[in-house]
Amino acid sequence: MIVETGIRDYLKEKATWVEAELERSLPAEWHIPGALKESMMYSLMAGGKRLRPILVIAAAEALGGSAEAALPVALAVEMIHTYSLIHDDLPAMDNDDFRRGKPTNHKVYGEAMAVLAGDALLTHAFFSVVQASRKHGVPAECVADIVEELSRLAGAPGMVGGQAADMLGEQGLTKLSELEYIHLHKTSDLIIFSLKAGGRIAGADSAKLHALERFGQCIGLAFQIQDDILDLIGDEQKLGKPVQSDVKQQKVTYPYFIGLEASQAKVEELTREAKQAIVDGGFANPARLLQLADFLMNRDH
Amino acid sequence: MIVETGIRDYLKEKATWVEAELERSLPAEWHIPGALKESMMYSLMAGGKRLRPILVIAAAEALGGSAEAALPVALAVEMIHTYSLIHDDLPAMDNDDFRRGKPTNHKVYGEAMAVLAGDALLTHAFFSVVQASRKHGVPAECVADIVEELSRLAGAPGMVGGQAADMLGEQGLTKLSELEYIHLHKTSDLIIFSLKAGGRIAGADSAKLHALERFGQCIGLAFQIQDDILDLIGDEQKLGKPVQSDVKQQKVTYPYFIGLEASQAKVEELTREAKQAIVDGGFANPARLLQLADFLMNRDH
Repeated sequence: MIVETGIRDYLKEKATWVEAELERSLPAEWHIPGALKESMMYSLMAGGKRLRPILVIAAAEALGGSAEAALPVALAVEMIHTYSLIHDDLPAMDNDDFRRGKPTNHKVYGEAMAVLAGDALLTHAFFSVVQASRKHGVPAECVADIVEELSRLAGAPGMVGGQAADMLGEQGLTKLSELEYIHLHKTSDLIIFSLKAGGRIAGADSAKLHALERFGQCIGLAFQIQDDILDLIGDEQKLGKPVQSDVKQQKVTYPYFIGLEASQAKVEELTREAKQAIVDGGFANPARLLQLADFLMNRDH
Repeated sequence: MIVETGIRDYLKEKATWVEAELERSLPAEWHIPGALKESMMYSLMAGGKRLRPILVIAAAEALGGSAEAALPVALAVEMIHTYSLIHDDLPAMDNDDFRRGKPTNHKVYGEAMAVLAGDALLTHAFFSVVQASRKHGVPAECVADIVEELSRLAGAPGMVGGQAADMLGEQGLTKLSELEYIHLHKTSDLIIFSLKAGGRIAGADSAKLHALERFGQCIGLAFQIQDDILDLIGDEQKLGKPVQSDVKQQKVTYPYFIGLEASQAKVEELTREAKQAIVDGGFANPARLLQLADFLMNRDH
């Protein structure tokens, strides 16, 4: 495949597409109380990189599969990501008043509605997954595999478990292995899901699914370490949030354990390893995934 | 089919079975942070009538289907019901300290963990649905249908929407139709889901699914009106909670709108209508569903 456009154009184009489809992801004929629908859409349309849905699409395309068929699952993973942010921001959790420069969901709609909007988005993600079968003929067996994997990687042994461990660890995390557990589940699991689900839609065999999983583990951890680095030395303007919040909140991070330089070296090493998994995997169109890994390593926000 | 045991024995037997299976519904090999798992299981094993899972099983049996094959979906619906109770009890929502005589989840594990335990149970419900296919060979198409219907009836246009409307309506509900909207979605939708999913597992055609839906609409509304009646004139000991809480909280109810006697007559009428739907539906084993409708009408807690 000839890569006609740079990765930034690719990301922008896919994000625009994903946002247009998120906008109409609640069937128009459904009757939903106005405030609930508003609250759901407020957070769903609040911007962001749309990284996870793009990974679903990029993984499907890497196998020569259809981006359209991958779309319902791409939307689903963004709904899961969005609900987790709404609930994480609640006063009982991280108690954040702003996200991406906008008031958080509960600041606008109240805590009760924020809880319900999160619940509704989480539930609607599974509706969206099934639409891959309804609208694009993805086999029901594949949909069942994706539902099962989403419920595991977004659930108690996955993302929610990582969030719980993070919360429990705030009282005193003492080992790097504990921090890695949190990163793996809180961040990487949903990234791994995204890549494998895109692969499944495109009919990946188990070797390719394994390569996508390895790619996801590496870029997921690199992504989180990069977050820690940017919080330490990033540009507040570009990040759209105050830096050094981890230090102020006495949160342990990768740089805290191994230092800034070793953290930067770790991001580079993980990126190399991620790309190797794709190169070794024999994908039809590996270019976008390789570019994505580099892009994430070099990002400044 | 000869009904060998009374409905109370049937309910007790199925509830005991459901509880034993709920107890082991989180795969033992999963690594889940201890406090999260405890918090999930605390509410999941906190008792209750287990009405919704029993409806899944009874509907499957009414069609001559297998109770075992219906079990994973029965467990799923109880997980959904349990998560909704955990989130409803939160300080930002109903702010309840006790449920079924035990401290509510957030009183024991804190608000943050209660939010996460609810999220995890909601997510795990979809995992459980897929196990119908993995463990009992239910066709993937049927699993996809059930996932879609669960996400709709438990989501924004269903249970969560009903909960949101209830919350929004607390400031001044003026019409019976608004109260019926809340009841339909907050309570009946999950009951309708349970019956139809049990039917689907047993291979119900669209006429039988329609009969089960009608049955569910009627017993769901009857159930909620009966709740209102019991809150007004029930026995505190039997209910395990203080009565007349609706009056104290100035909540509008069915008796508030049409009076106690007309409410009791409405429960009877809905029960008759529910039973008629089953009688007309030509089910192989209708007896348990008919008994269940009568049992719910006559319950005192």
